[in-house]
Amino acid sequence: MSNETNRSDGRTGVWFVGARGSVATTTVVGALAVHAGLAEHTGMVSELPEVSAARLTGIDRLVFGGHEVAEGSLAKRAEELRAGGVLPPAVVAAVAEELAAVDARVAPGVPPGSVSQRAATGRIEADLRAFRDEHELDRVIVVDVSSTEPPVADDPALNDLDRLEAALDDGGAPLPGSSAYAYAAFRAGCPYVAFTPSPGPRPPALAELAERQRLPWAGSDAKTGETLVKTVLAPMFAMRALKVRSWSSVNLLGGGDGQTLADPVNAASKTATKAHGLEEILGHRVDGPLHIDYVPDLGDWKTAWDMISFEGFLGTRMSMQFTWSGCDSALAAPLVLDLVRLVARAHERGEYGPVPELGFFFKDPAGAGGHDLSGQWDRLVEWCARDTR
Amino acid sequence: MSNETNRSDGRTGVWFVGARGSVATTTVVGALAVHAGLAEHTGMVSELPEVSAARLTGIDRLVFGGHEVAEGSLAKRAEELRAGGVLPPAVVAAVAEELAAVDARVAPGVPPGSVSQRAATGRIEADLRAFRDEHELDRVIVVDVSSTEPPVADDPALNDLDRLEAALDDGGAPLPGSSAYAYAAFRAGCPYVAFTPSPGPRPPALAELAERQRLPWAGSDAKTGETLVKTVLAPMFAMRALKVRSWSSVNLLGGGDGQTLADPVNAASKTATKAHGLEEILGHRVDGPLHIDYVPDLGDWKTAWDMISFEGFLGTRMSMQFTWSGCDSALAAPLVLDLVRLVARAHERGEYGPVPELGFFFKDPAGAGGHDLSGQWDRLVEWCARDTR
Amino acid sequence: MSNETNRSDGRTGVWFVGARGSVATTTVVGALAVHAGLAEHTGMVSELPEVSAARLTGIDRLVFGGHEVAEGSLAKRAEELRAGGVLPPAVVAAVAEELAAVDARVAPGVPPGSVSQRAATGRIEADLRAFRDEHELDRVIVVDVSSTEPPVADDPALNDLDRLEAALDDGGAPLPGSSAYAYAAFRAGCPYVAFTPSPGPRPPALAELAERQRLPWAGSDAKTGETLVKTVLAPMFAMRALKVRSWSSVNLLGGGDGQTLADPVNAASKTATKAHGLEEILGHRVDGPLHIDYVPDLGDWKTAWDMISFEGFLGTRMSMQFTWSGCDSALAAPLVLDLVRLVARAHERGEYGPVPELGFFFKDPAGAGGHDLSGQWDRLVEWCARDTR
Amino acid sequence: MSNETNRSDGRTGVWFVGARGSVATTTVVGALAVHAGLAEHTGMVSELPEVSAARLTGIDRLVFGGHEVAEGSLAKRAEELRAGGVLPPAVVAAVAEELAAVDARVAPGVPPGSVSQRAATGRIEADLRAFRDEHELDRVIVVDVSSTEPPVADDPALNDLDRLEAALDDGGAPLPGSSAYAYAAFRAGCPYVAFTPSPGPRPPALAELAERQRLPWAGSDAKTGETLVKTVLAPMFAMRALKVRSWSSVNLLGGGDGQTLADPVNAASKTATKAHGLEEILGHRVDGPLHIDYVPDLGDWKTAWDMISFEGFLGTRMSMQFTWSGCDSALAAPLVLDLVRLVARAHERGEYGPVPELGFFFKDPAGAGGHDLSGQWDRLVEWCARDTR
Ligand SMILES: NC(=O)c1ccc[n+]([C@@H]2O[C@H](COP(=O)([O-])OP(=O)(O)OC[C@H]3O[C@@H](n4cnc5c(N)ncnc54)[C@H](O)[C@@H]3O)[C@@H](O)[C@H]2O)c1
Ligand SMILES: NC(=O)c1ccc[n+]([C@@H]2O[C@H](COP(=O)([O-])OP(=O)(O)OC[C@H]3O[C@@H](n4cnc5c(N)ncnc54)[C@H](O)[C@@H]3O)[C@@H](O)[C@H]2O)c1
Ligand SMILES: NC(=O)c1ccc[n+]([C@@H]2O[C@H](COP(=O)([O-])OP(=O)(O)OC[C@H]3O[C@@H](n4cnc5c(N)ncnc54)[C@H](O)[C@@H]3O)[C@@H](O)[C@H]2O)c1
Ligand SMILES: NC(=O)c1ccc[n+]([C@@H]2O[C@H](COP(=O)([O-])OP(=O)(O)OC[C@H]3O[C@@H](n4cnc5c(N)ncnc54)[C@H](O)[C@@H]3O)[C@@H](O)[C@H]2O)c1
Ligand code: NA
Ligand code: NA
Repeated sequence: MSNETNRSDGRTGVWFVGARGSVATTTVVGALAVHAGLAEHTGMVSELPEVSAARLTGIDRLVFGGHEVAEGSLAKRAEELRAGGVLPPAVVAAVAEELAAVDARVAPGVPPGSVSQRAATGRIEADLRAFRDEHELDRVIVVDVSSTEPPVADDPALNDLDRLEAALDDGGAPLPGSSAYAYAAFRAGCPYVAFTPSPGPRPPALAELAERQRLPWAGSDAKTGETLVKTVLAPMFAMRALKVRSWSSVNLLGGGDGQTLADPVNAASKTATKAHGLEEILGHRVDGPLHIDYVPDLGDWKTAWDMISFEGFLGTRMSMQFTWSGCDSALAAPLVLDLVRLVARAHERGEYGPVPELGFFFKDPAGAGGHDLSGQWDRLVEWCARDTR
Repeated sequence: MSNETNRSDGRTGVWFVGARGSVATTTVVGALAVHAGLAEHTGMVSELPEVSAARLTGIDRLVFGGHEVAEGSLAKRAEELRAGGVLPPAVVAAVAEELAAVDARVAPGVPPGSVSQRAATGRIEADLRAFRDEHELDRVIVVDVSSTEPPVADDPALNDLDRLEAALDDGGAPLPGSSAYAYAAFRAGCPYVAFTPSPGPRPPALAELAERQRLPWAGSDAKTGETLVKTVLAPMFAMRALKVRSWSSVNLLGGGDGQTLADPVNAASKTATKAHGLEEILGHRVDGPLHIDYVPDLGDWKTAWDMISFEGFLGTRMSMQFTWSGCDSALAAPLVLDLVRLVARAHERGEYGPVPELGFFFKDPAGAGGHDLSGQWDRLVEWCARDTR
Repeated sequence: MSNETNRSDGRTGVWFVGARGSVATTTVVGALAVHAGLAEHTGMVSELPEVSAARLTGIDRLVFGGHEVAEGSLAKRAEELRAGGVLPPAVVAAVAEELAAVDARVAPGVPPGSVSQRAATGRIEADLRAFRDEHELDRVIVVDVSSTEPPVADDPALNDLDRLEAALDDGGAPLPGSSAYAYAAFRAGCPYVAFTPSPGPRPPALAELAERQRLPWAGSDAKTGETLVKTVLAPMFAMRALKVRSWSSVNLLGGGDGQTLADPVNAASKTATKAHGLEEILGHRVDGPLHIDYVPDLGDWKTAWDMISFEGFLGTRMSMQFTWSGCDSALAAPLVLDLVRLVARAHERGEYGPVPELGFFFKDPAGAGGHDLSGQWDRLVEWCARDTR
Repeated sequence: MSNETNRSDGRTGVWFVGARGSVATTTVVGALAVHAGLAEHTGMVSELPEVSAARLTGIDRLVFGGHEVAEGSLAKRAEELRAGGVLPPAVVAAVAEELAAVDARVAPGVPPGSVSQRAATGRIEADLRAFRDEHELDRVIVVDVSSTEPPVADDPALNDLDRLEAALDDGGAPLPGSSAYAYAAFRAGCPYVAFTPSPGPRPPALAELAERQRLPWAGSDAKTGETLVKTVLAPMFAMRALKVRSWSSVNLLGGGDGQTLADPVNAASKTATKAHGLEEILGHRVDGPLHIDYVPDLGDWKTAWDMISFEGFLGTRMSMQFTWSGCDSALAAPLVLDLVRLVARAHERGEYGPVPELGFFFKDPAGAGGHDLSGQWDRLVEWCARDTR
C-alpha cells in the first residue's frame, strides 16, 4: 500500500511527552515491529492508498525520544503491556535491544507545579535542539501523550504572546504543564501533536507563537473508541431525519489513563471534548449522562456502552445500543504514527497553524471542519491528494 | 423546512402494490396526518433542506390507491398497527374518513401463479391508466410494498424485451409477480419504486422497457434498520484501517413481513441484498451468519443484534456489538414518501432508467454508486442541488 | 390459581404514603382492573400456588386511600401513565369512576420540614383511624411509595423509643419524613410496608414501637429490576466458583422517581440498598461503578446495563453483560398488592416485627435471610405453607 | 477450602474419549497446574466447602489416559490453546514433561462406522482394564469429551440389553459411537460421565447394563455457558409471575466443537438438550430461534446473545438481553474434574445408575431433578453432606 519511492531520504524525530506511558510504548514497539516485518499495517490510516498519496516519510525513517516524569523504563512498561494482552510476546522479545536504545534517549520531564517556567521551558527546548542535532534529523515532531490535565482557568497571559513572554520573564508560571511543552516545542522550531485533551498548544498565546514560528500543529484528543463510533452514528440519524432524544454513554477503563481520569478534575477535559461532537452534528442539545469510570480490573481494555433513544415517523420511539470493547493503546499507537507522518508532511510543505484537514483524528478538532467522520475523511483525502496533482 | 412555493400545482398519484400491508397503511395514515398537521416530518429525508432543495411535490398533492390480494381494509390494518403501538390512537381516529376513501381506490391484485400474464398485466395497466385519468394526475408512481418474493431463476425471456413480449403473446407467464406489476407500470407510463428485494424492474427485459418508455425507477429493498447501521459502521472500520474478521447478524421480527421471511425461500432475496453492502465496503469476504427469524410476539418491532470482531495494530483482537430496536413500518413509511417525491421529480426532469443517486435509500442500489451511506448522501444532495443552480 | 374460598370475609385497607405517585396509581388502577376482569394476574407473586397457599385476602376485599403532598389527582396521573405506555387506554377508561372514589379518600400529607412532629404525626394517626372506622376495615396496611428520602444522620432519639417520645413531647422534629408516617402508622395499630429505601420503620426506636404494638412490617426498597437480576446472577457465579472481578451498573430512568434520584443526596439511600446484595452473596468486595441517571426522555421505562468481568480456571478472563428494559411501575404495582396481602396475613396470624420471610421482595431485606433470590423464595414458600399444614 | 485429610489414599483413573480435544487437554493441563501450585481452584465446584464436604479424592491422586482418533499430541493441542489465549504460556511450559507422559497413555479410538462392534468394544474394554491394572487404580472414570454425535434413531437393540448382546453377537453394529464406549466402560466396571449430548449411556439397554454392573453414571451435556445463565434467569421470571413471551438465542463459536456443530445433523443433539430446560422451568412453550453458528475467527471464545421478551402487570411489554463471552474449554475443564471426583465418590459409596444429584452440571440431567440451577445446587449440597452426618 505504501509508496516508499516517493519518500524523502532524511530522518524525522518523534519526541514524546509521556515517553514511558502505554501509548508511547505501544507506538515505539509497534514501529520497530513494522520496520522489522513482524507486524502489519493494521490500524495505520497513513498506509491506506488515499492517505499514503501524500508521500509520507517511511516508518523506518523515524527516530524516537522523549520526556517522562515517572521512574521505570520502556522495557518494563512493554512487559506490563505484554502481560495485559496488548503486545504480543514474540514482538516484545524481538525489539528489546532497539527499545533499550530509545529508552536511553528519554530525558526527565517537568513535573506539574514547577516554580519558574522560563528555566523549565528553556531546558525542554535545549533537549529538543540537542536531539535534532545529534541525530541529524530533518525535523522533530513533539507528541503529547502524557497524562490528561484539568482544563485551565482563563488567564490574560495565555491569550496574548507578549503578555505570556512578560509573565515568564517575571519568573511566573502561567502555563499549564502541557502548554509549557508546546511553548518549548514551538521555540525549538518543532511541529506539535496534541494527542490528549490537555490545553497544550490551544491557548491563543501559543497559537500565536506557532504562527510566528511558521509551525503546523494538530489536535486535540485522539478519537479512538466510543467517540469514533458516535461520529458515524450521529450523522446517520441526522441524514435520516430521525430525532435523537437521549444519548447516554458509559466508559469503563483501567490502566494509567483510567487512573488519571478517575479524578473528576482531570476527566473534565475529556468529557468536554467527548461531548462536543454529538451536539454539533445533530444541531441540538441531547440529554443523557457521559460517564468515565476507572475499573482497574479492565487494564488497557476499555468497554463502553451507549444507549440512544430516538424518535421516528408519527412519534414512534425506538432505540439503539452498542458496546465497544477496544484496546486503547492498540487503537492509539497507529494514529500517533499517522499524525507524525502527516504533520511532518505539512511542515515540509510549509503549512503552519492548526491543520484542519487532520480533524479526522480528533475528538476536538482544531481549526474549522466539523465532527462527522466521513466529512473529515473527505477533507483528509483531498489534502493528501494535493501532492499528486 | 420545506419550500412549498416552488412546488408544482398538479397532483401526483401513489399506487401501492400491497396496498393494505403495514408499510402502505403507515404511509397513507402518516401522509394524511402530516397534511392535517397532526404529525411532524420526523423520518422524512425529503424535508431536510439539502433534499427539499430539489423542489419536491407537496405531501398534500399526493393521491393514494393500489392493488392488494388480501381481504380486509386499510382501517382494519390501521387498527392492528395502533394496537401494536405503531400508530397513535388519536391519529388513526382523526384520519378515518380519508382512509376509507383511499381504501375505496384499492383494486384486486394478481395473486402469484396466474396462468396467462398478458391478460393480467393488461388489467393492471388499465387500472393504472384509469386511476391517473379519473383523478387528473400529472403522473402516477407505482411503489411495490408487497410481500417479498423468492429470487428468480435465470430465464431468457427476462433478459430481452422482445423475447418477453413473444412469451407473453404465446400465453406464457414468465414474469415473477413483482415484475408483472413493473411491466404493467412501465407500459402505463408510470415510474416505479422497488421498495422490496423482489425482482420487480430488475430483470434486463424490464430495464429495457423502462428505458424505451423513458421512465425513471429506483430500488431495491429499502435500507431501514440493521443494514442502515452496517453502512455507516463498515466504512468507519475501513477508514481506520481496522480489519473486520467476522460480522454476525441476527434479525428478529414478527408482523406480516416476518411471516413471509420465515420461509427461507422468500428470505433468500433479503439475505442476498443485506449481505451485498458489507463486503463491497470492506473489500473482502467476511465470516459470520446472517439470520432473519420470525418471532411473532415481536410484531412490527424488530430487534437486531450484530457482533463484529475486528483486529487492530499488532494483531490485537477487539469487538463491537450493537442492538437495534426499531419499528419497521415507522422507519419505512417516510422513506416511501421521500422516494415517491424524488422519483416524481426525476420524471418531471426527464431522467429515465435506474436513478443511481437514490442509492441512499436501498440495500441493493440499482445503478452504480456504492453502499457507504455517507457517500450515497453526498450524491443525493448533489442531485437535489441541480435544481437550485 | 387463587383459592377464594379460604379467604376471610372482612375487608383490608391499603393506605399509601405518596398516593398519587406512579406506583400508587398503577397499583390502584391495576387492582380495579383485575377485580373487573380486565387484567390478568401477571406479575403477582401472591397468585402463584406456592404463595396463595397462605390463604390471602382477595383483591376485591381491598379498600384504597392515602396521603399525598402534591396537587393533581389519580385520574391525571393515570392519564400520564397511559400516555407513557404504562396503562392500557381501555383499562383507564373503564375504572375512571372507581378511581375518582379512591382519589376522594386521599388526604393531605406532611411535607418535609414540618416544625412540631407531635402534631403532624397525631394528624396522620387520626386519618388512619378514621379510614379504618369509616370503612369498617379489619386492618389497614400502610405502604410507603413516596419519594425516596436521603439517608438519615445518626441521632440518639432515633435509637430509643423513650428518647423519641421525649423529643416529640419537647416540640422537636427528630423523625425523617418517612419515619413520621411509620410512627403514626404503628401508633394507629397499622402494619407497614417500606417499599422505598427511605428510613421509614428502620430506626431502632420505631422497630421498638412496632414490637410493643405487636405489629408486623416489611422492607426495604422493592427489588424490581436490575437488582432482581443481580440476585440470581451473583449466586450463579458463586455456585460455579467463578471469580467476579468487577461488576459495573448503570441505571437510566425518567419519571418522578428518576427526578428524585437525580439528586445525589436522595440517591444515596438507593445506591446503598442496591449495593448491599452483591457483596453479601459473593462474599468479597467487588469493583465497579453503580450509576443512577435521570434521563427524562425515558419516562417510566428504565434501561439498565450491567457489565460483569469474571475469571475462570487457569485465570481465563471472561465477561457477561445484560440490558434490562423494564417499566418500573408495572413491575412494582403487583408487588405492592403481594406485600399488602402477605403483611395482612402476618398480622392476622399474630406475627410482629420485621417479617424476614418477605426478604424475597426487597433490595435491603429487614431481618435475617440473605439476598439470593432463590433462597429467599424457598423461605417465602415455606412461610406460606405454614397455613396449609 | 479442601479437606485433604479425609481423602482416601488410592488413586483414581480418568479415561477420556476424545483425549486430545480442547476440553480434555485443558483438563489435564489444569489438573497438573493445580497440583503443581501454578493455578488456583477457580471454577472448581468441588472445592467449594459445601461440595468438598463429600470427602472427594485429591486432584493429585488422578491418573489420566484416553482414546483418540485424531493425529497430533496433547502438546500440540496445548500449544494451540496457548496461542488462542486459553492456556497461560508459563503453565504450558511448566507441565510439558508430565503432559507428554499422559500423551503416551492415549490409545487409538474407534472411528465411527466400524463394522463389527463386538471386536471394537472388546478392544476398548481391554484398554480400560489394562490402564486400571497397570497403574493400580482404585477405579477408572470414563469421560466422554469427544465430538458431538447426531441423535440416534430408535432401534429395538438399544432398548433392551439382551437384544443388544444378541445383535453384537450377530456381528452387527447397532451402537452409536459414544454408546460403544459406554458399553465397553460398563463391561470393564468403569463409571461414566457423558459430558457431551451424544447418546452415550442413555439408551435403555445401556442404562440396564450400568444397573446390572452396579455402576454410577452422570450426564448429559455439561452446562457451561448460555444455558447455565438460562437456568437462573428463567426461574427468576417464574418466581416473579412474569410471562416470558419469546426467548431467542444465538451462539457463535469457533474451535473444534464449533466445526462439529456447524453440521446441523450433529447440532441437533445440542439444540435439543439446550432447549429442554427453558420450557420445563417456565411450564409452557416459548417462541424464539436457537442458533449455534460456527465462526472460525472466534476460536474457543464463545459469544452468545439472548433476547427475552416478557410481559408484566396490565400486559406491559418489557425485555431483557444478555451477551455471554466465555472461554468454553476453561469453563468445561474444572467441571470435568468435579464430575470425576463426584462420580468416583458415588462409586465408592456403592450408588449406581444415573446420579440425579449431579443434574447441577448438565443441560439434560439424567434422572429426576429439574433444570433450575438453584434447586439443583440444593440437591447437590444435600448429597455431599450425607458423608458428614
Ligand atoms: N489510548 C487512547 O485511545 C487515547 C485516546 C485519546 C487520548 N489519549 C490520551 O493519551 C494520553 C496517554 O494515555 P496512556 O494510556 O499512555 O496513559 P499513561 O498513564 O499510560 O501514560 C501517561 C504518561 O505520561 C507521563 N507523564 C505525566 N505527566 C507528565 C509530565 N508532566 N511530563 C512528562 N511525562 C508525564 C506519565 O508518567 C505516564 O508515563 C492520556 O492523556 C490519554 O487520555 C489516549
Ligand atoms: N418495513 C421495512 O422496514 C421494510 C424495509 C425494506 C423492505 N420492506 C419490504 O416491504 C414489503 C412490505 O412490508 P410490510 O411490513 O408492509 O409487509 P406486509 O406483509 O404487512 O404487507 C405486504 C402486503 O402485500 C400484499 N401482497 C402480497 N402479494 C401481493 C400481490 N401479488 N399483489 C398485491 N398485494 C400483495 C399482502 O397481502 C400484504 O397486505 C416487504 O416485502 C418487506 O420486506 C420493508
Ligand atoms: N417502581 C419501582 O420499581 C420501585 C422499586 C423500588 C422502590 N421504588 C420507590 O417507590 C417510590 C415511588 O416511586 P414512583 O415511581 O411512584 O415515584 P413518584 O415520584 O411518581 O411518586 C412519589 C409520590 O410521593 C409523593 N410524596 C413525596 N413526598 C411525600 C410526603 N412527604 N408525603 C406524601 N406524599 C409524598 C410525591 O408527591 C409523589 O406523588 C420511590 O421512592 C421509588 O424509589 C419504586
Ligand atoms: N466446552 C464446553 O463448554 C462444553 C460444554 C458441553 C459439552 N461439550 C462437549 O464436549 C465435547 C468436546 O469439546 P471440545 O471443545 O474439546 O471439542 P474438540 O473438537 O476440541 O475435541 C473432540 C475430540 O474428540 C475426538 N474424537 C472424535 N470422535 C472420536 C471417537 N470416535 N473416539 C475418540 N475420539 C474422538 C476428536 O478427534 C477431538 O480431538 C464436544 O462434544 C462438546 O460439544 C463442551
Ligand atoms: Na462523505
Ligand atoms: Na433454592
